[in-house]
Amino acid sequence: MTRFFATPEEMLPEFIVLTGENAKHAKVLRLKNGEEVLVCDGQGRECLCAVSDVSEGQISLVVRSRQESAAEAVVRVSVYMAFSKGDKLEHVIQKATELGAHEIVAFPSTRCVSRPDEKSLKKKLERWQKIAASAAEQSGRGLIPEVVALGSFHEALSRATQADKAILFYENEQAVTLRMSLQAGEYHSVSLMTGPEGGLEAAEVEKARQMGLDICTLGKRILRCETAPLCALSAVMYHVGEF
Amino acid sequence: MTRFFATPEEMLPEFIVLTGENAKHAKVLRLKNGEEVLVCDGQGRECLCAVSDVSEGQISLVVRSRQESAAEAVVRVSVYMAFSKGDKLEHVIQKATELGAHEIVAFPSTRCVSRPDEKSLKKKLERWQKIAASAAEQSGRGLIPEVVALGSFHEALSRATQADKAILFYENEQAVTLRMSLQAGEYHSVSLMTGPEGGLEAAEVEKARQMGLDICTLGKRILRCETAPLCALSAVMYHVGEF
Repeated sequence: MTRFFATPEEMLPEFIVLTGENAKHAKVLRLKNGEEVLVCDGQGRECLCAVSDVSEGQISLVVRSRQESAAEAVVRVSVYMAFSKGDKLEHVIQKATELGAHEIVAFPSTRCVSRPDEKSLKKKLERWQKIAASAAEQSGRGLIPEVVALGSFHEALSRATQADKAILFYENEQAVTLRMSLQAGEYHSVSLMTGPEGGLEAAEVEKARQMGLDICTLGKRILRCETAPLCALSAVMYHVGEF
Repeated sequence: MTRFFATPEEMLPEFIVLTGENAKHAKVLRLKNGEEVLVCDGQGRECLCAVSDVSEGQISLVVRSRQESAAEAVVRVSVYMAFSKGDKLEHVIQKATELGAHEIVAFPSTRCVSRPDEKSLKKKLERWQKIAASAAEQSGRGLIPEVVALGSFHEALSRATQADKAILFYENEQAVTLRMSLQAGEYHSVSLMTGPEGGLEAAEVEKARQMGLDICTLGKRILRCETAPLCALSAVMYHVGEF
């Protein structure tokens, strides 16, 4: 079924009118009157609608029913990834969205070689949010993960620990596995944090430990900075029974 | 510790001499006499060695001990991925190697839009094998996964079922999860099979079922053809206790 993301303002109770990109998309798809489509608010709620009119620049819909999106995970996972070179963050934003992340948070750490200045960051955040929206649509999600950029490592730790469980992955940790952390306690939200290309510094890991994050291994193989978050996210989704 | 991959012929019992790329690499690293390095045969065995001489074009080593590589997974996972467009196979080969795959197998299916002819396939296989070797070295593996290309979907099914457990992921499967399959029986080897961009045809899935593969879901979200194999591989590695 065709899916559209609408703004909260467009999500009216009985009739929905979509314009702009959505209307263009509807025209390309040659939607017919009576056809059923799904309209999502990007925050986990969706409406089953029937097309009532397609005209130049707008598509009109009749709302048939409303529901919570069935495609959202039972646990809200936030992916914290250090700023990294090239298009690695974009790659992780796209894939983490497919894999069901609730939000993606970029942060600086000592060994980050790439750290956008304020002006380029604003542009990048717009671009990143578009990547998340597009991946959410393609993977059939009802929620568009928010992409957030933080100004300091301390802020990242502090924000990550607001989840019920916060985990930092460190290549020098050998004893504590992700499984040990996930088996302990109850949680509805999890933060997963990974370092940049050159890894995190021991002092940064120690600080994370002091602030209450579980320091875990992702196994005996060294994962690239763009592989680690997706591996961890896949494992968490598997652990909580998503597949 | 620095790691080198050597050919089986180079892996002599007491003294090892490395030439070519390895010697160049040793020079760049400015290895000193007495320094310890790891020499891997690329098939899961490795030697702890001490440098005895570095000269132009060769490095001489004294073998101190031999061991099975500690970085290999307890279960041998074969990743079967349908031929796909662009550099998606290359991406999966690199990431699956990091994540610990034992081999990566490319195969054709009805909806594959890209399927290399025999001549370009030979070149591609060489390139793919180099990507696996490079990723194995970077991630600290003792084994270089073999990259294999098969001629038919039937051949892929037949080969995949030679593992103790063979699983095919299908977006229209909703009842049987990966967990259900992994919890059943004992196994030392697993085949994970995923389709191309357009998905597998229902008849292909039915054929797989008849040949004994478990047909499983990877959850409620539709994953891209390059995301699905890595998500499944991460989950299997997590399930068998790798992290």
